[in-house]
Amino acid sequence: MQSNDQQAYDRGVTVFSPDGRLYQVEYAREAVKRGSPAVGVATEEAVVFAAHARPRSPLMETDSIEKVHDLDGRLGVATAGHVADARRLVDFGRQFAQRERLRYGEPPGVEPLAKAVADRIQESTQTGGTRPFGAALLVGGVPEASPAMEGTAETDVDPRLYEIDPSGTPTEWRATAVGRGSDAVRDHLEAEYERGLDTPAGLSLALSALAESSDETPTAEEVDVAVLDEAGFDAFDRDRRETVLADAGFDGAS
Amino acid sequence: MQSNDQQAYDRGVTVFSPDGRLYQVEYAREAVKRGSPAVGVATEEAVVFAAHARPRSPLMETDSIEKVHDLDGRLGVATAGHVADARRLVDFGRQFAQRERLRYGEPPGVEPLAKAVADRIQESTQTGGTRPFGAALLVGGVPEASPAMEGTAETDVDPRLYEIDPSGTPTEWRATAVGRGSDAVRDHLEAEYERGLDTPAGLSLALSALAESSDETPTAEEVDVAVLDEAGFDAFDRDRRETVLADAGFDGAS
Amino acid sequence: MQSNDQQAYDRGVTVFSPDGRLYQVEYAREAVKRGSPAVGVATEEAVVFAAHARPRSPLMETDSIEKVHDLDGRLGVATAGHVADARRLVDFGRQFAQRERLRYGEPPGVEPLAKAVADRIQESTQTGGTRPFGAALLVGGVPEASPAMEGTAETDVDPRLYEIDPSGTPTEWRATAVGRGSDAVRDHLEAEYERGLDTPAGLSLALSALAESSDETPTAEEVDVAVLDEAGFDAFDRDRRETVLADAGFDGAS
Amino acid sequence: MQSNDQQAYDRGVTVFSPDGRLYQVEYAREAVKRGSPAVGVATEEAVVFAAHARPRSPLMETDSIEKVHDLDGRLGVATAGHVADARRLVDFGRQFAQRERLRYGEPPGVEPLAKAVADRIQESTQTGGTRPFGAALLVGGVPEASPAMEGTAETDVDPRLYEIDPSGTPTEWRATAVGRGSDAVRDHLEAEYERGLDTPAGLSLALSALAESSDETPTAEEVDVAVLDEAGFDAFDRDRRETVLADAGFDGAS
Amino acid sequence: MQSNDQQAYDRGVTVFSPDGRLYQVEYAREAVKRGSPAVGVATEEAVVFAAHARPRSPLMETDSIEKVHDLDGRLGVATAGHVADARRLVDFGRQFAQRERLRYGEPPGVEPLAKAVADRIQESTQTGGTRPFGAALLVGGVPEASPAMEGTAETDVDPRLYEIDPSGTPTEWRATAVGRGSDAVRDHLEAEYERGLDTPAGLSLALSALAESSDETPTAEEVDVAVLDEAGFDAFDRDRRETVLADAGFDGAS
Amino acid sequence: MQSNDQQAYDRGVTVFSPDGRLYQVEYAREAVKRGSPAVGVATEEAVVFAAHARPRSPLMETDSIEKVHDLDGRLGVATAGHVADARRLVDFGRQFAQRERLRYGEPPGVEPLAKAVADRIQESTQTGGTRPFGAALLVGGVPEASPAMEGTAETDVDPRLYEIDPSGTPTEWRATAVGRGSDAVRDHLEAEYERGLDTPAGLSLALSALAESSDETPTAEEVDVAVLDEAGFDAFDRDRRETVLADAGFDGAS
Amino acid sequence: MQSNDQQAYDRGVTVFSPDGRLYQVEYAREAVKRGSPAVGVATEEAVVFAAHARPRSPLMETDSIEKVHDLDGRLGVATAGHVADARRLVDFGRQFAQRERLRYGEPPGVEPLAKAVADRIQESTQTGGTRPFGAALLVGGVPEASPAMEGTAETDVDPRLYEIDPSGTPTEWRATAVGRGSDAVRDHLEAEYERGLDTPAGLSLALSALAESSDETPTAEEVDVAVLDEAGFDAFDRDRRETVLADAGFDGAS
Repeated sequence: MQSNDQQAYDRGVTVFSPDGRLYQVEYAREAVKRGSPAVGVATEEAVVFAAHARPRSPLMETDSIEKVHDLDGRLGVATAGHVADARRLVDFGRQFAQRERLRYGEPPGVEPLAKAVADRIQESTQTGGTRPFGAALLVGGVPEASPAMEGTAETDVDPRLYEIDPSGTPTEWRATAVGRGSDAVRDHLEAEYERGLDTPAGLSLALSALAESSDETPTAEEVDVAVLDEAGFDAFDRDRRETVLADAGFDGAS
Repeated sequence: MQSNDQQAYDRGVTVFSPDGRLYQVEYAREAVKRGSPAVGVATEEAVVFAAHARPRSPLMETDSIEKVHDLDGRLGVATAGHVADARRLVDFGRQFAQRERLRYGEPPGVEPLAKAVADRIQESTQTGGTRPFGAALLVGGVPEASPAMEGTAETDVDPRLYEIDPSGTPTEWRATAVGRGSDAVRDHLEAEYERGLDTPAGLSLALSALAESSDETPTAEEVDVAVLDEAGFDAFDRDRRETVLADAGFDGAS
Repeated sequence: MQSNDQQAYDRGVTVFSPDGRLYQVEYAREAVKRGSPAVGVATEEAVVFAAHARPRSPLMETDSIEKVHDLDGRLGVATAGHVADARRLVDFGRQFAQRERLRYGEPPGVEPLAKAVADRIQESTQTGGTRPFGAALLVGGVPEASPAMEGTAETDVDPRLYEIDPSGTPTEWRATAVGRGSDAVRDHLEAEYERGLDTPAGLSLALSALAESSDETPTAEEVDVAVLDEAGFDAFDRDRRETVLADAGFDGAS
Repeated sequence: MQSNDQQAYDRGVTVFSPDGRLYQVEYAREAVKRGSPAVGVATEEAVVFAAHARPRSPLMETDSIEKVHDLDGRLGVATAGHVADARRLVDFGRQFAQRERLRYGEPPGVEPLAKAVADRIQESTQTGGTRPFGAALLVGGVPEASPAMEGTAETDVDPRLYEIDPSGTPTEWRATAVGRGSDAVRDHLEAEYERGLDTPAGLSLALSALAESSDETPTAEEVDVAVLDEAGFDAFDRDRRETVLADAGFDGAS
Repeated sequence: MQSNDQQAYDRGVTVFSPDGRLYQVEYAREAVKRGSPAVGVATEEAVVFAAHARPRSPLMETDSIEKVHDLDGRLGVATAGHVADARRLVDFGRQFAQRERLRYGEPPGVEPLAKAVADRIQESTQTGGTRPFGAALLVGGVPEASPAMEGTAETDVDPRLYEIDPSGTPTEWRATAVGRGSDAVRDHLEAEYERGLDTPAGLSLALSALAESSDETPTAEEVDVAVLDEAGFDAFDRDRRETVLADAGFDGAS
Repeated sequence: MQSNDQQAYDRGVTVFSPDGRLYQVEYAREAVKRGSPAVGVATEEAVVFAAHARPRSPLMETDSIEKVHDLDGRLGVATAGHVADARRLVDFGRQFAQRERLRYGEPPGVEPLAKAVADRIQESTQTGGTRPFGAALLVGGVPEASPAMEGTAETDVDPRLYEIDPSGTPTEWRATAVGRGSDAVRDHLEAEYERGLDTPAGLSLALSALAESSDETPTAEEVDVAVLDEAGFDAFDRDRRETVLADAGFDGAS
Repeated sequence: MQSNDQQAYDRGVTVFSPDGRLYQVEYAREAVKRGSPAVGVATEEAVVFAAHARPRSPLMETDSIEKVHDLDGRLGVATAGHVADARRLVDFGRQFAQRERLRYGEPPGVEPLAKAVADRIQESTQTGGTRPFGAALLVGGVPEASPAMEGTAETDVDPRLYEIDPSGTPTEWRATAVGRGSDAVRDHLEAEYERGLDTPAGLSLALSALAESSDETPTAEEVDVAVLDEAGFDAFDRDRRETVLADAGFDGAS
């Protein structure tokens, strides 16, 4: 499946291949694609997260495999990929937020946080003696809207959504996905997303997009849902997950 | 049994394979599967542990090969896999608990402890110059129940059980197993476990599940049994092990 | 495509090949050539930057993939290549500028900054345990003109433009480009550039040169434009980008 | 004798093989099996050590190749395997005992000492840049008996015997052996050992078991004998060694 | 072009080959031979430098690729080879000179400076984890003549010229060259140089020697010229470069 | 001469071979066997050293290739093997003796010194990044006899002789040899040595044993002789060497 | 020229070959043999040095390639081999001498200095991450004669000459040589050297011996000559070199 030439460059993260690629980073992206998918959608007032997290067994507590995390009350993260790596990055983000809050009396903005996490990841791709993180993150925040920003003047908040990939690059999106089947999910989001979306519509969009990632209908047991808005981070319990799944046209009961 | 391509990626823990896998972590999972099995069951008031620990010789003191450990009076751990590695992780957990107790005047919760151990393990899979730990852990605790938690309101405690695997991922379970034959054990648990189980029933379930891991009938000499409840960590002596084995339908005498 | 002999020397940055080459640095240059292009033009009063930054999806916020950065109000940078690496170098430059400003009460000159960034890059090519940065930078500044400098006496500022490549070599230019298709862009600049260019003409030149890097017409959505002059760093918003694209003979609307 | 697949995993201690084994630790066990044997027997009041230590030449001082060591007056160690490695571990144990004695005013218990030595060994199997120790240890101690312990109530001391192997696992035994022919020695011990053994009987058992490790009759010159009891560590001189060999049915003179 | 035997020795700088050679240093010399040439000539009162520095593009500021550097007012350096490496060495020399001046109130002599730079280079050839510098330097100075020195009694200064090669060996010359075509340049110098040369004759000799390094006639735009004498370091501007090229028999205009 | 399997384990000192051997230590023993031989004999009142040290040329000062060293006035060392390595170990021993003397007001005993040197050597065989020492040592001392020691009651001193090999194992001898032909030398010693030997007889024995190491007759020029007794370390000059050679039946003149 | 077996052991300095050799040290000896030769002769009152140092070009200042160095006024060094390595060792010796002089108020003796340099070299052969020095040194000194030394009683000084080779072994000689053709030079010295030589005779001997190293007659331009006696270190200028060459039977003019 690969040639000898490629092998020569992909065993250590610290070298470029002759055509200027970093294979270990590309393989870490494959680790992300092996993970269950997560979707983020920025609506007019909120960032909506939906993620697939199928328990391996009915005896597993589904809370313990959550894919969407409250970082700080004002920041949320969804992850895909190597679970243990993702946990370390979520912890890193949480500690960064706490440190900033202690220092400045307020939580960090979503952009500084996304950049701090991205820096941490980029280091893992350049410094010797470590491998890249096999995880991608969606980071959401709802800073107060600045009047000067275009197209957000109607509301008091300016919901923002960042994706951070295994190379350590942060990019901002209106709606995107990471993990298994994310190309199909993103196609669905590109086709259906409209600016000015309200939050219920955003939830339905996120869930219907997530459904594109596999052949199976999402169920309340296997889906994580959270809304981050001016009121803070709100993780949906099973009843509410069933409701929003029904709203999105799925029979959410498992 | 394996191709040249695979060999290229599994000799160092710090690299991903082209399809995004970490082979060294997968081989550490094999080391766990080579170890004698351990079962954990969360009942209404307790976490029950049962583990297989066959002495290599009648001259070996069976206490010295114990598989179930009292961490702190309020936390228990059962292990499977490379014995020396498991010991280090149990020691790490014990020291973490003592440090927390000194700092806060009370033992850590089961979740913080499980996460601290999981972090220690994840580091061993990413940092250069070390190999993963070839051991998996079941960590149990009986924190006081918070009223808000669903399904635990009837009792004063909220028994919780975590599994930590060689990748450093903690997951919460109602009942699970690690080590040799753990798939068969877990099938048995999935078939027989019911919420609201009392502790005697939990003990019987743990022992009958453990029996699925091999063709031999468990005996009082070769099985470790412990119950962690509001009263603390209680390791069963041989007489009581014989009793619970008999209760579970086995002739516990060896 | 390459011989065994070459392979022997290109896996580690710290060795010379028999003919005195550093292959890892050359491969990092390939990483630059894979990145979207950036153009810099020094005019009579300003440094003009134009860069191609095509969003991967209509849902991606184009601001988050900006290729032209305000370092310090008086210094600007455009980048090409591995995005995460470029970000680190931009951050390094920003921190250097802040440190100098704190120390001396004024921002650093463009030359000291370019040399500091170049030193940082050269270290990455000689020190063990790290790879080169897969990015090239255009650094611009508008120091006050010194009377003694030839050909700049007519204005109060002396716009200067440096290119820094993956070997860590800074070179000064009147107009140049980095990234995909930069050879074609530079050919265009060499043919069309004239000393004494005013800024609107410089903007048109930068955009028409950038257009040489690919077969597609540049659009306001996919192009970053900024002007650095005595008044400071000025990043153009979409309306102004459309205007200058139209001035340059393109239909800038996307 | 071994396949290419195996070779791939046994050259560095820090990697698991695909089936979850640590070959370097297994090879260190082979180094132990190449060393002359040592036997430990816990009697009612003492731990008895006997070890084979054949001098390479009649000119060699047999004291200098002693295999049984007084750690601290209250703790004894017998070793097998790579001699220089064993010496380092004995020294480590001795220093640990002294440190504990300084800190607490009394020597460490046999279990803490065995665990400290085991930790030191386990580290050598996980950390990069070092090899495992090619030695196994038998550690004995005679702590005061606690009334709660089963089967030891008749005496004032509770003799305990630990084996520590090259993986860093400590196990407790009533009687065991390490080194060349230890399987045969242990078979003999299993067949002949009885609880409640007095010390003279223990000495005879240890010597007759040791005799199983080779075809040659043990002689006073080639055997180390020591008894650790409430009175302390007592290494037998040649006359007493001849006596106990005679008691065990051997003609101890050499 | 090279055998397998050679390959075994040229991948790391820290090993000798069986015939006692350091291939990495020899390859660094190749890097020097790939760089544009520089010539140094010691005359009766001065050290004259001339160097070829062809801009890659007419848009490149030729000042930014200067090959002759004023170190300290009393010391000059010309370089050939890997540009980024040469810059580091020039910076090192400049800092050494500043440090000495701070410490002793006067600039260092040319010999101590040359030796300090040479030490820095030698270290790079022996210490692990680094490669040699791919650059050679010509260092000139005009210390006051000591009466005791032979052949310099007629003037007040004693112009001295050192070459430092990639092995870190400093050698003193009356006239020499580094870089592409330096063998041909040096042949010319050997044929034409005479002791007691005055500075105008030295300039002509340097330029005619430089012309031997390639087939093209040197032009004022592509040549760096500087004179270091008792009055200090004097870099020629373009007009003066045209004049001295004409004096040397070239039509210096470009 | 060796198989591929062996090659796999002998290139780094830090790994065991599948049969539990450390090849690098065994090769260091070969380095010892390539060195000229040294003999030590403990007599009733002294330790006698004799060593072969053939000068490479008549112009070489034989003192500078001495093989027997006065460590401290009360301790002596003879060496065989890689000369530069042996020198470092002798220096280490000398510094250890000085440090102990400063600390306790008296020189260290021969056993502590031998163990300190042995520890230093053992470390070189286990820690990464270094090779074993290619040298073996004979260390002698004349501590005051303790009445309790058997067989030494007749005299006031208790001469002791240790051999330290490249694995870092110290062993005590009455008489032994290291270096080229040491097996033959030791055979001779075993055949001829008797307890209670006086020093002149010990000298003769040492020299006749040394003669067994090669086909040539030892001469005063090529042999080092020293006696360490209660009076201190006494290196014989050439005249006395001729005398003792004659006493031993050789014509010592060269 | 070499087999596969040898290759396996000569790529890293830190391993022994199966027959106990250190190939990297042997290759460093080859580097010495590639260097121009140096001769040292101890006379009754002095140490005489002569060395071949052919300039690569008639324009090269021969002073800058000197092979004989004044360390401290009372100590001299001649070198052969890799020039940059030799320079580092000469510097090390010079610094050692200065440090000792500061500490004790007098320069170090020749033996301590030779041993300090030898230690520095030995370390480079055992510690990982560095290569041996590719240089050999002749170190001379003229300490005051101690009456007890044999054969030096007639004069007030005791001239001593040490050779230090790439293994880090110091040996003392009456006369010896290092570098290209040193075997032939030493044969000449052995044939012609006589104890009690006065210094003019020593100079002639050194020069005639040096002439044996090549087919060409030594000339004043290509030979370094120095005498170290009670009066200090005296480097000969060209006139005196011509004189002593003529005295030695050569036509010293070049």
